[in-house]
Amino acid sequence: MTIKAVVFDAYGTLYDIQSVAAVTETEFPGYGEVITQLWRIKQLEYTWLRSQMGTYEDFAVVTRDSLAYTLDCLGIEAGGGAFERIFAKYLDLALYPEALAALDALAPCKRAILSNGSPEMLGALTRNTGLDRVLDDVISVDAAKVFKPHPRAYALAEARLGVPPREMLFVSSNPWDVAGAKAFGFTVAWIERVSREAMARELRRPGPLPPQTLFKALRTQMDVLGFEPDHRIGSLAALAEIVASR
Amino acid sequence: MTIKAVVFDAYGTLYDIQSVAAVTETEFPGYGEVITQLWRIKQLEYTWLRSQMGTYEDFAVVTRDSLAYTLDCLGIEAGGGAFERIFAKYLDLALYPEALAALDALAPCKRAILSNGSPEMLGALTRNTGLDRVLDDVISVDAAKVFKPHPRAYALAEARLGVPPREMLFVSSNPWDVAGAKAFGFTVAWIERVSREAMARELRRPGPLPPQTLFKALRTQMDVLGFEPDHRIGSLAALAEIVASR
Repeated sequence: MTIKAVVFDAYGTLYDIQSVAAVTETEFPGYGEVITQLWRIKQLEYTWLRSQMGTYEDFAVVTRDSLAYTLDCLGIEAGGGAFERIFAKYLDLALYPEALAALDALAPCKRAILSNGSPEMLGALTRNTGLDRVLDDVISVDAAKVFKPHPRAYALAEARLGVPPREMLFVSSNPWDVAGAKAFGFTVAWIERVSREAMARELRRPGPLPPQTLFKALRTQMDVLGFEPDHRIGSLAALAEIVASR
Repeated sequence: MTIKAVVFDAYGTLYDIQSVAAVTETEFPGYGEVITQLWRIKQLEYTWLRSQMGTYEDFAVVTRDSLAYTLDCLGIEAGGGAFERIFAKYLDLALYPEALAALDALAPCKRAILSNGSPEMLGALTRNTGLDRVLDDVISVDAAKVFKPHPRAYALAEARLGVPPREMLFVSSNPWDVAGAKAFGFTVAWIERVSREAMARELRRPGPLPPQTLFKALRTQMDVLGFEPDHRIGSLAALAEIVASR
């Protein structure tokens, strides 16, 4: 079956969310890593909880609320503009090094983002990193007022791009997003950024663990939710071959 | 307003889910704590994700799947009945020490459980711990085929007990459950088992963290979801006074 469009998750897939660690560490030396990991874990928890409760607020609200939660946990006051400087990093995250070349190699296939990000956040992020000149569309779940993995969020890509789900290759490094996209009906490629072997090696030691190790253990291994990706790849660079081979 | 029924969350509220640590440590020495914490975090993630994806499976499935995920992360094979021995602890968790006396003190008010647990799990758990002789009802979300904090899960208590939400005191130690119950309309008491001060003290040290500290940081502090409990208490023992005072 021919792939007519490639649809990307943004945070963690094209953009390295770990790149916020430089800013959190500058603002709160010694606590950059724990802030970075807790913030990201809670940010997604809040999207899932709000979707389920039926109390949607956009991703900018959720991103601020989860940062506020994280700083409260640590008993840290973020005065003097520190809070906004940390939040602003979400508008200028680092692209994964292979992202631009991988997107170029997929032309003339349609390329789009489908992200939890709000339209404003995604607009700023793609402009600041030059992806606005490469992508055919940037789709925010905000139009559906639910977050991924709710099926109505994925349905936006079908509606906007006019391509049946099976003929779209959905690309994500987030295991829960892979499961949601498969449940919806996309063809799905999973970017496996941490192998099973590397995970076990890093996790399997008694005693305290770096916060990033706990983050990886929660959010980088394929979830047991009854769905498996069609393709498992190590980086975005492998996508062009998948599209060519189908 | 008079409280006509007190409805309890089970796992983490009446029952100490940390009591599985004895079994996980016996089966896999040195890894009991990391298994216990990752398992519980993923177990709830899976309930939230399945509710949202519209792919409900009961809590026994979710509890097994999240345990399988956790052991996979560690690269541990659970042969020789170890997997089932760990799972079985969920059918005989330790009650919090004050639970039975607190339930007795609430009579003649109706007392019920509203839990994510499957009917079979909750049946075994309440029988094994003697709560079946104290409670007026044990309500599983399974009848709604969604998990908390979906409003249809909370609506089961209203339907089964025949009491309007505001006249029910919903009791949970789980911040996301408090938010969901408030969004639905219950009067809500939050058992704050880890104070803000204790949390900050435990979390605020550079370097690696015990897995239990990460668990506490993710799941014991009041979430920023737009809802606050009506009552904050330190233990179940304070409930009788709340009911008497309203």
